[in-house]
Amino acid sequence: MEIEGAATLWVAAPSHYNNRNFMRTIKLTLEYDGTDFHGWQIQEKSKRTVQGEIYKAFQKIFGKKPCLVGSGRTDSGVHAQGQVAHFKTDSSLSAEKIVSALNANLPHDISIIDAKVVRKNFHAQFDVKSKIYSYTILNRKSRPAIHRNFCYFYPYPLNLKLMKTEARALVGQHDFRSFQASDPQRQKQSTVRTIKKIVINEDGGFITIDIEANGFLYKMVRNIVGTLLEIGSGKLPKGSMRKILARKNRLAAGKTAVAKGLRLKEVRY
Amino acid sequence: MEIEGAATLWVAAPSHYNNRNFMRTIKLTLEYDGTDFHGWQIQEKSKRTVQGEIYKAFQKIFGKKPCLVGSGRTDSGVHAQGQVAHFKTDSSLSAEKIVSALNANLPHDISIIDAKVVRKNFHAQFDVKSKIYSYTILNRKSRPAIHRNFCYFYPYPLNLKLMKTEARALVGQHDFRSFQASDPQRQKQSTVRTIKKIVINEDGGFITIDIEANGFLYKMVRNIVGTLLEIGSGKLPKGSMRKILARKNRLAAGKTAVAKGLRLKEVRY
Repeated sequence: MEIEGAATLWVAAPSHYNNRNFMRTIKLTLEYDGTDFHGWQIQEKSKRTVQGEIYKAFQKIFGKKPCLVGSGRTDSGVHAQGQVAHFKTDSSLSAEKIVSALNANLPHDISIIDAKVVRKNFHAQFDVKSKIYSYTILNRKSRPAIHRNFCYFYPYPLNLKLMKTEARALVGQHDFRSFQASDPQRQKQSTVRTIKKIVINEDGGFITIDIEANGFLYKMVRNIVGTLLEIGSGKLPKGSMRKILARKNRLAAGKTAVAKGLRLKEVRY
Repeated sequence: MEIEGAATLWVAAPSHYNNRNFMRTIKLTLEYDGTDFHGWQIQEKSKRTVQGEIYKAFQKIFGKKPCLVGSGRTDSGVHAQGQVAHFKTDSSLSAEKIVSALNANLPHDISIIDAKVVRKNFHAQFDVKSKIYSYTILNRKSRPAIHRNFCYFYPYPLNLKLMKTEARALVGQHDFRSFQASDPQRQKQSTVRTIKKIVINEDGGFITIDIEANGFLYKMVRNIVGTLLEIGSGKLPKGSMRKILARKNRLAAGKTAVAKGLRLKEVRY
């Protein structure tokens, strides 16, 4: 009788499922087409966001909405190929099942690429070692039809060689204040970051600018790209990048390049 | 007086503009995202087609709709990176102005890449030397978000090496009846075509199959791709492609791969 009772209890409400010690931390890697989103971060209900859509799927799968922490926000229109986020759950679903359950409940413009059970104190934002952002420019005379939501259409001639040379001035640890969005709220934090690598390539009119850094200031990539375009088009002379960096003033740099050309490519831990 | 009269007449209605001898033949190269089109060919008014949208732009620019002849039709959902079409016009607009006028009047999912004045009897369909179609498969476990309208999502393992070997059997002049759509209307024409080249590549989970031929039967590329997938996944054994080709029967080949993975890459003259 005692055994039977215990067994029944076990099936009905496995006590460790609600135990904090059974909580697992899940690391998600995800891809999204940012075109129809007001960015990553959940906002008022009328605005469609990536986080908001994932919470709806969480509610359906887990019956609740565990807090989802992203590696960082992405702006309206910005895409992600390898965004990373974590959440804690007491669900016993395998990582593989979490991927398929989420993909079955998410809209077509979000896809969960991978889920992994990680150490309990893994933190998608604080544990970041580096991030790689990729910016795509279509440099030809006629506007894009197929890639129209995934590149910045720039129809004027560009000196790619000069852009590559000037970009080198950004590599290393620098105060990137000149490339920070002119948002007074953010002015007080440190603006020193380390760019590990910048790779600029061209293929069939598509110019990609990949930047790896230990962290990015708000709109930093788009401001760097806007400045590189002014250099490449001859509006700014050779040697400008080093001078702009030294000025530590947003007004020294070029315009912010449009959001849809930007993609969060990878987050490294 | 006579001179003045003649000059006035010249400005008001330049006689050669309406003269058949002044008719120019314009070759257009265009790109489109086939997602929201019922294919290339104009149909009933309720169906949005590429040709239909270009005719609307023609009406605005030229005040009439010169006949637009494509290199061939593309089906609903099929994309084009280098579709070619021609039309005849008595307009004096330069080729460059025709590109910008068309792009200003066309929706975002069609772009005119180039316009050229060509010899009067150039024919976009009859003068084709070869066409290159490209098919994209995304071979990974999770569905695509960013490229969802431009690839066939295939989540099962594929033997790419075997697919490449088997594809070789298709190169050369053959009767491709086995890969023709099972449409009785088309059964009477010759089904002999020459495949000049097949190139299969893989990059980051994306498998592209490029096929160049002097002509294609209806749904030929999609039927070849469907068959290659059955070979790659192990449903059909090594040596199948040669046997299927010899059978000259549509039932011998694999399923038709979905339209959205297909793209008309280039038309050669």
